[in-house]
Amino acid sequence: MGDHTVTFLPHNKTIKVPSGEMLLRAALEAGVHINASCGGEGVCGKCRVIIEEGEVADGVTEKLKKSDQEKGYRLACRSRIAGDVTVRIPVESDVDASILTLNIPPRQTARVHQMDFEELKEKGLFIPPVEKKYIELPEPTTQDNLADATRLVSFLKLNHDEHRLVVRLPVIRKLPDILREEGFKITATIARPVQEGRKSHIINVDPGDTTAYNYAIAMDIGTTTIYGQLLDLVSGDVLAEHGEFNGQISYGEDVISRIVYAEKPGGLRKLQTVVIKTINDVIRRIVQKASVDCDEISTITLAGNTTMTQLLLAINPRCLRRAPYVPASTIYPPISAAGLGIELGDHVTALVYPAISSYVGGDIVAGVMGSTMYRTEKLTLYLDIGTNAEVVIGNRDWLACAACSAGPAFEGGGIQFGMRAAKGAIQDFSLDPVAWEPMLMTIGNVRPRGIAGSGLITMAAVMFEMGLVDSQGKFNRDLDTPRIRETDGIGEYVLAWEENAGVDRDIVITEVDMDNLIRAKGAIYAGCQTLLEEVGLTIGDVEQIFLAGGFGSYVDLEKAMTIGLLPETDADKVTYIGNGSLMGCKMSSLTNRIRRDVVDVTRKMTSFELSETGSYMDHYVAALFLPHTDISLFPRLKSRMDARKKAS
Amino acid sequence: MGDHTVTFLPHNKTIKVPSGEMLLRAALEAGVHINASCGGEGVCGKCRVIIEEGEVADGVTEKLKKSDQEKGYRLACRSRIAGDVTVRIPVESDVDASILTLNIPPRQTARVHQMDFEELKEKGLFIPPVEKKYIELPEPTTQDNLADATRLVSFLKLNHDEHRLVVRLPVIRKLPDILREEGFKITATIARPVQEGRKSHIINVDPGDTTAYNYAIAMDIGTTTIYGQLLDLVSGDVLAEHGEFNGQISYGEDVISRIVYAEKPGGLRKLQTVVIKTINDVIRRIVQKASVDCDEISTITLAGNTTMTQLLLAINPRCLRRAPYVPASTIYPPISAAGLGIELGDHVTALVYPAISSYVGGDIVAGVMGSTMYRTEKLTLYLDIGTNAEVVIGNRDWLACAACSAGPAFEGGGIQFGMRAAKGAIQDFSLDPVAWEPMLMTIGNVRPRGIAGSGLITMAAVMFEMGLVDSQGKFNRDLDTPRIRETDGIGEYVLAWEENAGVDRDIVITEVDMDNLIRAKGAIYAGCQTLLEEVGLTIGDVEQIFLAGGFGSYVDLEKAMTIGLLPETDADKVTYIGNGSLMGCKMSSLTNRIRRDVVDVTRKMTSFELSETGSYMDHYVAALFLPHTDISLFPRLKSRMDARKKAS
Repeated sequence: MGDHTVTFLPHNKTIKVPSGEMLLRAALEAGVHINASCGGEGVCGKCRVIIEEGEVADGVTEKLKKSDQEKGYRLACRSRIAGDVTVRIPVESDVDASILTLNIPPRQTARVHQMDFEELKEKGLFIPPVEKKYIELPEPTTQDNLADATRLVSFLKLNHDEHRLVVRLPVIRKLPDILREEGFKITATIARPVQEGRKSHIINVDPGDTTAYNYAIAMDIGTTTIYGQLLDLVSGDVLAEHGEFNGQISYGEDVISRIVYAEKPGGLRKLQTVVIKTINDVIRRIVQKASVDCDEISTITLAGNTTMTQLLLAINPRCLRRAPYVPASTIYPPISAAGLGIELGDHVTALVYPAISSYVGGDIVAGVMGSTMYRTEKLTLYLDIGTNAEVVIGNRDWLACAACSAGPAFEGGGIQFGMRAAKGAIQDFSLDPVAWEPMLMTIGNVRPRGIAGSGLITMAAVMFEMGLVDSQGKFNRDLDTPRIRETDGIGEYVLAWEENAGVDRDIVITEVDMDNLIRAKGAIYAGCQTLLEEVGLTIGDVEQIFLAGGFGSYVDLEKAMTIGLLPETDADKVTYIGNGSLMGCKMSSLTNRIRRDVVDVTRKMTSFELSETGSYMDHYVAALFLPHTDISLFPRLKSRMDARKKAS
Repeated sequence: MGDHTVTFLPHNKTIKVPSGEMLLRAALEAGVHINASCGGEGVCGKCRVIIEEGEVADGVTEKLKKSDQEKGYRLACRSRIAGDVTVRIPVESDVDASILTLNIPPRQTARVHQMDFEELKEKGLFIPPVEKKYIELPEPTTQDNLADATRLVSFLKLNHDEHRLVVRLPVIRKLPDILREEGFKITATIARPVQEGRKSHIINVDPGDTTAYNYAIAMDIGTTTIYGQLLDLVSGDVLAEHGEFNGQISYGEDVISRIVYAEKPGGLRKLQTVVIKTINDVIRRIVQKASVDCDEISTITLAGNTTMTQLLLAINPRCLRRAPYVPASTIYPPISAAGLGIELGDHVTALVYPAISSYVGGDIVAGVMGSTMYRTEKLTLYLDIGTNAEVVIGNRDWLACAACSAGPAFEGGGIQFGMRAAKGAIQDFSLDPVAWEPMLMTIGNVRPRGIAGSGLITMAAVMFEMGLVDSQGKFNRDLDTPRIRETDGIGEYVLAWEENAGVDRDIVITEVDMDNLIRAKGAIYAGCQTLLEEVGLTIGDVEQIFLAGGFGSYVDLEKAMTIGLLPETDADKVTYIGNGSLMGCKMSSLTNRIRRDVVDVTRKMTSFELSETGSYMDHYVAALFLPHTDISLFPRLKSRMDARKKAS
């Protein structure tokens, strides 16, 4: 990568960034504000900076006059770092320089957890659940006329130490022809048993040597989005990844409305057909992207919340939404993928992650497995923020879990301009402490179209810490900026004026949005606190936090702590694992060990019904502030706020 | 039953027979000949006898003049025994009475092996592979909101000592509704694992208590006929039985022509569809006969020869008919019955008996299992005579088997008037030693339409012993009877003249038939001898013989020894088990023990290829005589023949 040093003036802040990084992002990471309203598309022309030493690549658009270019001006949002450079941010002359150095913490992007494949191999844990073996069998003679299947099984036993082999009927059907196609030289695909000591299944045979082509699919069945990954079972690589909206969205946005639809005549069947269609669309795309032959896919692992799983398997979910909230099952037997309607070979078995309860589903179990939380000694808090939020606390010895009725704010639900982490979503934000002008970074560096979860968190945190909103999420109408205004008595802040937006109106964040955000983060925080209390611990005991969810890898942890979504803790303790459900599916495609352990883990996971826990409501009410009624729980934030008060 | 004594004069032979027995059959059993050409239908009027003491019921038709009736004449074929009775057979006056008392052994019907269900129960072996349990589950509450499947499994574990339970997906799908239909009172259908220590599967659930209704189907897939039995898994009773011609017959009479057809495009699929149709026809019939609800059938077990099995499972059989005669597999995994096209509930698994080789199939393995041969200490010879013949020798310690290329003579193949053991088939036969007139007994006591296997054996034996044919099967043209004649130079004997036959021509047995019979029995005898030789034994070492096959339970063992089909041994040592394949299927439906043992047994069974065994051809050629080149192997027959020679 080759890191370069970027120095920002007059702040005199430096940061090391990789070659090719956008200057605007470098500023954001360093905690330096540059006005920028167009999300990095280079159309607002506000992010003008002066290059004082060194050079940047690009950085010039028609928005920049020739004369200014000659003076060293560049647009920060179009400039790429190509060497050490010193950059001056033009600020209003009347700004006190001290305000620029106020103790606003620099960006703390969560570390992204990457499973180390080499490590897996070293530990001897790279045991894909499906393996291919190339074998050259002796041809039968009158003296040696064993049945084809017996010949295959005996050879594998004798020469490959493969015992307890079962040959499935479809394999028996094709075996005579396949064996005789290339002189009894074949590749056998063997599915390992989930539990040790059980039988291995020969699920497929091909003529010749096809061992180089062995793939798996991992798939997260989200209420909103279905993500799939194509995995190479030989190298362990992710060859392609793709997400599509769950086709069921047309039948209801959340799980409750899906259940209601499933209860109508033909509804369950319809929803199942529709989700399978999306799954097939995703498979088609990733297979195309990676130029892989669909027939070479040997296994698929899926995870989803309990409702998504029951709909996928055509199990009526009606009892999930009625007290006492009983799932039909928490364990799902392996099932033929083709039997479900998934367009994969007849030999492919679909493995579906088990659930814990009606509201802690297989997606959470997958996250617990994939993040290796279930094997660590450290007391871990696992937080999955998706269309709803779930929390797991524990370590390798015990696990407690609960679902928080947080709602989908972090996935864009209930937020006027909320959207998923997709192109045009504001994912990062900074605020001019004087003019209250925003700096927006969007996914894809295009004009903003809405607010992603990570952007929403940062926005609320910055606005609160800089006094733009109070602890109840109300905008300070006394501030001198046209961006704060009222519509129907509700305060709002204009993030992007229509001319710089990717939609045909101003993009705003409102007090209603703030309220929804506070309720969501409050529910999650209260969930964590209640669960900790139930197991006799406090947030201070938590040694590490795994954060999962779809709000994107740019979530700023310090900001998440500032709004009281996360307990205030060392940011180093927090690992962002992205889509935990998908990660779990991927991991169990690469190591059978996880599939073996998962049943034990689900038995170990004690589920708590928060609504049945008396203290939950108290914790919730106390958390309905930024960051919390009791600010002493957030000492770092408190000291920054105190310093700011003193300075102003 | 109340046995009555019947005395035949002038032979002065007595026999005890049950009340209601036909007089003609009583005579036959006693070794007393009465002329009778119409199979017992009472139309030829030849079987006139005089009742000297006691009375018989019926016995009168229009063929008997009033005056004769008054003199005590009755038709033997229409007279039923109702008490002790003395009967005189009118014989030609010039017959030397001594000829009537010549040492022709009385009929020796094989004992019919009946599985003793009570014995099975006493031994603790009545363990049906599928069991129903009625349970009343506690209803879920907010404090106890286990998943439905978990509730079911936990309850069975705690209260019924059922461990390692798997709930199948279709059960999970219906469980929520079924549970709530009758207040969590349900019947669970549990399929036991084949191997101990493996998992039991909950395959079905019904609301309320349905434990009284639990049925199984046993089915023999013969090349010619498909027999099914409906079994009550509660009482162990056979509720109904039915046989239908295998629909595949239209595509070829024997396995070779079926394989040839299967190799044509679409042929395999066609043959599979057709056999499944016959299976469904048989199921429909037995279910109807027993007035049972098809949904209450929990399991089906099928057995057939290797070709029939491969066709049933849609496995291309082409390698079965080409050296080195390799089956695709000898073990067939359990498979969904509905998936095969069998019209049973989705929860029903079809179990298919494993095979040994291309020509020793699952039907033979089923016979070995069902007859308990595999558990006896006695050295046993198991002989299955069907469309082809297979022989197994051994006991609980070892088993050797081979297929004999005997052809279908005993099922009617290659015999001009040969037919299966169906209505109108001659199944028993006797010969007037003076006038060479026949006495025919047909199945159903109707006019003869052809010759069943048992009839053919008896016919050949009697004709040979009485000198009507020689040891090469040629008719003695010097005898003074119009029944012996020549057609195109080939000798034949008229069994029934057209006017007494159930077909529109004379029914005959020809020298070509005799030749085919000799080849068939020679192949079987040579197969037994070769196999015994291969394992270092002789026929004298055999302690018991199990005889299986479709020629009917009236096969006369002494006659089978006379023609050299069976080695000459004590008739008490021979047990006729009928359809061994069906019996095996029935037994494994009633006791899981058999299914557990079967894999071990197939591993134990050593298959010999007779065509690869040098001595086979010598044994075969030596056996191409009645009974054999070496008559000293048949000492009882030899002494009877010697006595006859002296007398004449």
